[in-house]
Amino acid sequence: MNLSSITHSCNTTVVTLRSPYLLFLGEADIDSRAKTAFGLRDWAPERCLGQLRLPACKVTLGLPDMTPAEAAARGGGSLVVGVAPKGGRIAENWIPVLRAAVDAGLDIVSGMHDSLSDVPGLAALAQARGVHLVDVRNPPTGLPTGTGRKRSGKRLLTVGTDCALGKKYTALVIANALRERGIRVDFRATGQTGIMIVGSGLPMDAVVADFSAGAAEVLSPDADADHWDIVEGQGSLFHPAYAGVTLGLLHGSQPDAIVLCHDPAITRIKSLPDFPTPSLEVAAQAYLQAGALTNPDIRLVGVSLITEKMDEATRRRTLADAEQRLGVPAFDPLKTPLQPLIDRMLAA
Amino acid sequence: MNLSSITHSCNTTVVTLRSPYLLFLGEADIDSRAKTAFGLRDWAPERCLGQLRLPACKVTLGLPDMTPAEAAARGGGSLVVGVAPKGGRIAENWIPVLRAAVDAGLDIVSGMHDSLSDVPGLAALAQARGVHLVDVRNPPTGLPTGTGRKRSGKRLLTVGTDCALGKKYTALVIANALRERGIRVDFRATGQTGIMIVGSGLPMDAVVADFSAGAAEVLSPDADADHWDIVEGQGSLFHPAYAGVTLGLLHGSQPDAIVLCHDPAITRIKSLPDFPTPSLEVAAQAYLQAGALTNPDIRLVGVSLITEKMDEATRRRTLADAEQRLGVPAFDPLKTPLQPLIDRMLAA
Repeated sequence: MNLSSITHSCNTTVVTLRSPYLLFLGEADIDSRAKTAFGLRDWAPERCLGQLRLPACKVTLGLPDMTPAEAAARGGGSLVVGVAPKGGRIAENWIPVLRAAVDAGLDIVSGMHDSLSDVPGLAALAQARGVHLVDVRNPPTGLPTGTGRKRSGKRLLTVGTDCALGKKYTALVIANALRERGIRVDFRATGQTGIMIVGSGLPMDAVVADFSAGAAEVLSPDADADHWDIVEGQGSLFHPAYAGVTLGLLHGSQPDAIVLCHDPAITRIKSLPDFPTPSLEVAAQAYLQAGALTNPDIRLVGVSLITEKMDEATRRRTLADAEQRLGVPAFDPLKTPLQPLIDRMLAA
Repeated sequence: MNLSSITHSCNTTVVTLRSPYLLFLGEADIDSRAKTAFGLRDWAPERCLGQLRLPACKVTLGLPDMTPAEAAARGGGSLVVGVAPKGGRIAENWIPVLRAAVDAGLDIVSGMHDSLSDVPGLAALAQARGVHLVDVRNPPTGLPTGTGRKRSGKRLLTVGTDCALGKKYTALVIANALRERGIRVDFRATGQTGIMIVGSGLPMDAVVADFSAGAAEVLSPDADADHWDIVEGQGSLFHPAYAGVTLGLLHGSQPDAIVLCHDPAITRIKSLPDFPTPSLEVAAQAYLQAGALTNPDIRLVGVSLITEKMDEATRRRTLADAEQRLGVPAFDPLKTPLQPLIDRMLAA
């Protein structure tokens, strides 16, 4: 057992993963079924050691194929289930692979609906081998309720007019840009994919409601005055199902800065089209008002827009319009420079 | 097994309890340790069959003392743990009583931190006897996420400027007043004590955050157009720890009417005195704004104030001030008539 594994087993407050990863693709037949694996390859290449494919697999990440034993010999930390098969279940023919990974001394990391500990015999084998079965969906036990106590250090939270509007990737890109400027920064993951990308975090949507804000407080602890935590947002204050999660995360994160994420092509909540999405102005105002409860100095510092399918002229016009309406820099995290946003963040 | 027990075992969506209750007081030495039992006696006398006290108990509810077997012989449905001992644990010397209750065919209902199924042998005994161990803290499994779909029937939700301001008792009193007027009404319990008082409900604070609004939707299903659900509020939008729970409940309940509960003696959040409570105006505005997401017709119909310790002149002045500021009837649910509120509710 190496040091990172000991750190893992001692950490009772956030989910912590042991890297590098061997990415398991199962029998994925199309790339979209292995979205998690592709996301890890693209956003955390330094954590990805290789791929493991069953014979029927038709997908490749372009990483070296290796067995669990080979991965362990090269310093691998975890076998990560990077595929979401139809039905979301752990397949019968995966079990030999999972057992081989445990035998080789790898942790197993899964975001599947089925729990790894429900695979017959796997938990006992893992215990005997001294490795961990990590269901990323499960938050740690013993989370506290919120206190609202002001913590040291700076925090930014990404928020949205709907779910699935780039809150995770916006936060990752901002964290990277700050790092390149020499600013000390941590990306704080709040969902499964984010946790796998950075190797630690808390699955906020799976926390019991009474502990939402407390979990967010644990996730971004006291830090040096010039340190930034970039917190991955979840849900939306305007989503009839998930606004409670969003509010708990907002209150517990007590952000100094928020970035509003939006898709100009969307006018209705994607999963509930009876509900309109709010205007940028209404959304910004609602987040600032709610966030002021735990941080009266909260401010909007930027707008993150999805402009992928626009031609260049439309993109420029769309960003300019958002800037003019909200008075802060607008950007597409995958298409345009972040410098104006970062300048605005640091100019507090 | 009688019909109510069968109903219980088939109901997978809300917690349902079998009455009447035998109230277990353990070794309570002062009334406040048996608060739950006193609450049940006062608010649900028709559900309370008797009391069971250990020899060292110094408290009485004034109900007949009886053994589990005697309670069962008189039609008893459940032994309800009505005492909260120091530390909140199930004591060693309770176990014979719990076993005797199961033996007699009673369900056991507990809101303790320890789970009843962790008492050695009790779960197996209950299964053999065909009775239920009900930890009221535990929500049912399989709750859905919210849909925001507009449901038929009318709903009122009690909300507050802080936690523990009479939201439960206000809702109970309103439900009783409507019933007396011949209106069809259900009290919808969202916390342990409320669930025990009416025999069913959902412990909202224990639901996983992603399912908060969905749970609230399940709790108050479609009903006849003139039927009222009176939903017990939880937490406060202004509490840094619990606002997420409150918002999920508000969105899922989609109330037509809210009653704002407040204690004029309180100016700081009780458990977090660094945080001020909002003014009545600010609080009403925030609840109406947030609630409009799932019910644009939401309106404030009354203000419920705690005036217990005021003299009559101060009470009258305080209620008049609140009425004048918010333009709706103000009342103390334990001290003043509800008629103006009920008139306002029904005058939609």
